[in-house]
Amino acid sequence: MRLVRFSTGGGAIRCGLIQGNDVVALGDLVPGAPDSMKEVIAQWDSLAPKLKAAKANGVPLSGVKLHAPIPDPEKVMAIGLNYADHVEEAKSAGVTAPESQIWFCKMASSINDPNGDVEKPKSSAKLDYEVEMVAIIGKGGRHISKADAPGAIFGYAVGNDFSARDWQLKTHQWVLGKSFDTHAPIGPCIVTADEVGEPHRLAIKCWVNGDLRQNSNTKHLIFNVWDQLEELSQVMALKPGDILFTGTPGGVGMAQQLFLQPGDVVRCEIEELGAIENRIVAEA
Amino acid sequence: MRLVRFSTGGGAIRCGLIQGNDVVALGDLVPGAPDSMKEVIAQWDSLAPKLKAAKANGVPLSGVKLHAPIPDPEKVMAIGLNYADHVEEAKSAGVTAPESQIWFCKMASSINDPNGDVEKPKSSAKLDYEVEMVAIIGKGGRHISKADAPGAIFGYAVGNDFSARDWQLKTHQWVLGKSFDTHAPIGPCIVTADEVGEPHRLAIKCWVNGDLRQNSNTKHLIFNVWDQLEELSQVMALKPGDILFTGTPGGVGMAQQLFLQPGDVVRCEIEELGAIENRIVAEA
Repeated sequence: MRLVRFSTGGGAIRCGLIQGNDVVALGDLVPGAPDSMKEVIAQWDSLAPKLKAAKANGVPLSGVKLHAPIPDPEKVMAIGLNYADHVEEAKSAGVTAPESQIWFCKMASSINDPNGDVEKPKSSAKLDYEVEMVAIIGKGGRHISKADAPGAIFGYAVGNDFSARDWQLKTHQWVLGKSFDTHAPIGPCIVTADEVGEPHRLAIKCWVNGDLRQNSNTKHLIFNVWDQLEELSQVMALKPGDILFTGTPGGVGMAQQLFLQPGDVVRCEIEELGAIENRIVAEA
Repeated sequence: MRLVRFSTGGGAIRCGLIQGNDVVALGDLVPGAPDSMKEVIAQWDSLAPKLKAAKANGVPLSGVKLHAPIPDPEKVMAIGLNYADHVEEAKSAGVTAPESQIWFCKMASSINDPNGDVEKPKSSAKLDYEVEMVAIIGKGGRHISKADAPGAIFGYAVGNDFSARDWQLKTHQWVLGKSFDTHAPIGPCIVTADEVGEPHRLAIKCWVNGDLRQNSNTKHLIFNVWDQLEELSQVMALKPGDILFTGTPGGVGMAQQLFLQPGDVVRCEIEELGAIENRIVAEA
């Protein structure tokens, strides 16, 4: 199934299901379905069969505004240097292949809509893109083994880990450079894990103004999604709706000292998951 | 004023005000007062005069259980190496005095009660303490100048930035080592900024099993709270209830390779703000 948060005509934001070319509100399919995607995920085992059995009228997908599928995750974790070609291009900055998983985070306040404007901050001259497959936690938990990890995932989406490189490298801690407001667009929908099946086989691409900059496949992840859940869940209980940015392939702007400017349009696309597209605007 | 979240006899958690030796529920003082401390803070301008004017019966403070004053902050930011003596003791690990503010974060899921048990993780042999003054954002906002920073703060509390040093230093990114579940106890209450006045003049101390380990004063902060708000708000809009761990003085266990074990009791105290005390327990 494909889940979205959507609104029409500036109205309230609802959770919905994509059915063909339409979006159907969950609450129209199952009266009393939660308004919060985190709650939808938490109640999924009882909700999913009801959603599958129900019928209701939808609205054309082309006429709705899509919002971030999860606007308020408790945690947004992100792994660095997780594709070999990205490690290679970062070597000029003194980077070497990681021996263990390098985790940082994006503050939840940086979450943005799949087609939301992304701010070039007043205080940064080095705004960059990073297309990433995003994994969304379902059951979650603590001390999840690699073998059990697939069962802890709710679904997948496309994300862009926008990065202010000057802030990222101002100190050795990356979080500020990764957490400017608007810098974590995700979407366009959550494709449930059962529909995706094996996530490590998907083409992943990023264009800037139509120019293909990143072009890889999630099979090239150094630490795959199962490795990631095993590592993270040693530290913290993963919870429904937590978001993991799983790494970006080579081709980022920093490697060529080519940074984003207002007016640029960045498109990120992952096979079977869809695309998000964000216009860069100057911070007001 | 001094605000807490409290419960009695295993009942519901309520927001309350300390009055002498009693705690009075906000909802008993002002019917309809929010149950969420983040909401209390957001509505403070209209709520505070009503609270001051109202009277209600309380319960003895000695008979209540205190909970984390804010269990669900959107953001928990923390600054590293922000007391000169702590920089000095970390030099053996290759640390030098920071030229700019070193920000990392603790995931919000690590928040714990002021007297909550703190887990020694199964996967860590190097659990350490760090007493810190915690600043709680009130009005917040973006691009807050140092001059305007005092007006953006709601209040202050005591925090312990528990750190799994082996995980903190496993890679160059600190967030995992700082974010184990239970590793961010805060409290015992929020003392409002008007009551504290100047926050850079408070004795700050930490004992382990009665042994004084850290003993400094917030006047020794390298980057003070106003500096911190100016820096952070260039990146992200600060919001009501966001939490800043403002740095720890010298005396941490790592400097002597002396780490916490189950059964140890760590007490953190800050002048005028009170004390929190946490027992270390083995992760189940």
